[in-house]
Amino acid sequence: MKIIIDALGADQGPSMVAEAVAAAMQQREFDCVLVGPKAEMAATIDRFSNRIEVIDTDVRIMNEEHPVMAIRRKKNSSLVLGLNRLNETDRGVFLTAGSTGALLAGGYFITGRLPGIERACIAAAIPNPKGETVLVDTGANMDTTPKIQLQFAHLGSAFVASKGKTDRPRVGLLNVGAEPTKGDKRAQETYELLSSSSLNFVGNIEARELLDGKCDVLVADGFAGNVALKALEGTAKTLFDEIKKGVYSSFLTKLGGALLKPVFRNLKETYNYKAHGGAPLLGVKKPLFKAHGDSDADTFRLAILEALDYAGQGVEERIEESLKREADIHEAREDAGKEGN
Amino acid sequence: MKIIIDALGADQGPSMVAEAVAAAMQQREFDCVLVGPKAEMAATIDRFSNRIEVIDTDVRIMNEEHPVMAIRRKKNSSLVLGLNRLNETDRGVFLTAGSTGALLAGGYFITGRLPGIERACIAAAIPNPKGETVLVDTGANMDTTPKIQLQFAHLGSAFVASKGKTDRPRVGLLNVGAEPTKGDKRAQETYELLSSSSLNFVGNIEARELLDGKCDVLVADGFAGNVALKALEGTAKTLFDEIKKGVYSSFLTKLGGALLKPVFRNLKETYNYKAHGGAPLLGVKKPLFKAHGDSDADTFRLAILEALDYAGQGVEERIEESLKREADIHEAREDAGKEGN
Repeated sequence: MKIIIDALGADQGPSMVAEAVAAAMQQREFDCVLVGPKAEMAATIDRFSNRIEVIDTDVRIMNEEHPVMAIRRKKNSSLVLGLNRLNETDRGVFLTAGSTGALLAGGYFITGRLPGIERACIAAAIPNPKGETVLVDTGANMDTTPKIQLQFAHLGSAFVASKGKTDRPRVGLLNVGAEPTKGDKRAQETYELLSSSSLNFVGNIEARELLDGKCDVLVADGFAGNVALKALEGTAKTLFDEIKKGVYSSFLTKLGGALLKPVFRNLKETYNYKAHGGAPLLGVKKPLFKAHGDSDADTFRLAILEALDYAGQGVEERIEESLKREADIHEAREDAGKEGN
Repeated sequence: MKIIIDALGADQGPSMVAEAVAAAMQQREFDCVLVGPKAEMAATIDRFSNRIEVIDTDVRIMNEEHPVMAIRRKKNSSLVLGLNRLNETDRGVFLTAGSTGALLAGGYFITGRLPGIERACIAAAIPNPKGETVLVDTGANMDTTPKIQLQFAHLGSAFVASKGKTDRPRVGLLNVGAEPTKGDKRAQETYELLSSSSLNFVGNIEARELLDGKCDVLVADGFAGNVALKALEGTAKTLFDEIKKGVYSSFLTKLGGALLKPVFRNLKETYNYKAHGGAPLLGVKKPLFKAHGDSDADTFRLAILEALDYAGQGVEERIEESLKREADIHEAREDAGKEGN
């Protein structure tokens, strides 16, 4: 497996990326194409010269740029050069910590979408005490339609199934109440589409139940999905900060904090959104993986390993199968309808 | 001040409501109209016979009923009888733990909206380490428009101002990023309306910042607002549950837990969504207050005291002033535009 890495996407810059690559290479056997300024990554490149190839560039697409414009104009950017190389690579995966919008645009216009897919989405794993729930979408797509959300459900379901733990992932819909009539018009219509789909739809999930492990895949518009995910992160962070402040308030609470250290560490690891290095962009023809913009070397190292695992899962085939099953049941229903006439 | 209470709205029933009324009456001087089955509240009614009046009914509007249909058909329901009495009362407030939809419908068709208000909204206070942020709307309204959200901003701002702590509450917009171009079309347009409004608009607020105290009023569509609020509640609950489990895992962690008990209790009190007994429905002509459906006697007692405070704040006048200021600046701009021609 070959990983093609955009070394210019991360806030901390190419030297951090090179450090992460070196650490990952010591852990696992893989080849790498580093797309970025060669001079700033020289030590790592020299050290693993037989496993690292470099595409030398210092052109970066910034977060503030218009994504589609940027990928059209900046042909020598690390993102565009990296995605072009991915297209020429047989068994490869692309990883970036750069602009999500630009990655999405690159996925649409350079690697291409899978047949029948209207929008690609970012699938973030939300850890819970029982395992994890994959949220689709987490903020890459705004103003989605019920049909697009049904596709997100297929993308997320295929992704979870490709991890091998379950063949029929439970799919939930993020909504404001349990009943089918709850929510805005879009949520109500999405509920209907999911109910009559080939997926293992388990109904509406309220944001209060995000960590209850009631579903393996949670479908949402990018706006609500982003709000849910960030509210969760923000609340966890504030609570941990406040506990810390409380612990440091007296000698006895300090002692209490010391005794509970393993409990807190454990919880912090579970609910740290950086426990995962990144998340895949689902619905495109080639494996694309997004790392956090503010990754440090350790988080980026994790993202490299996750991206390599992801690329080996064969999610693209699963997605095509899932969409085929959906088409088949609709065809069967139409046939049954005709016979009934 | 006279409080008119729907004794049939709460899950725990009229006897719990009567118990809460008795407790509140020992704390504060006020008169009460209890709308519900007299027989089930006899002890409290007898005890405070000079301060409690009863409207005897056992007709209840259920959560599952269509709100508008229900208030039209069930003329003898506790909600309808209570709201009619409120209309006849000079200085009064109405409190219910029943269906939010039915209260909204009652607010529209029985007490009536304030002039110019398209939709009324529920304003929940989210506690944070620095104070609190009032979220408008929290789930009463789906499929809102930017214009409706601007009105929510006026409602929330007037409500916070009427509490007397600040004259110019900071208004934020719940969104997926800081920049004005972030979010779906509705959020982008709402951002523009808020920017050019008479309000003290401080920009977009991400769900991650919900507890950072960056604004006094947070504007959102009911769907996203509900997701944010419930994600926060759910995360806090899960973390406290997990900490508790960790504390009980060994002798040393139990000791640690005992030493940190004041810290946890403090935090739990701050982030318990039942720290508040209820929330007002803003935008209607008369003070309407909603308590939690699953209130116990202590939470409902709190809701009674909050409802009485709320009714004394004169929020309706503040709202009319706020809308007038908004109309004035638009008029002034139009005049300036005409002079420029």
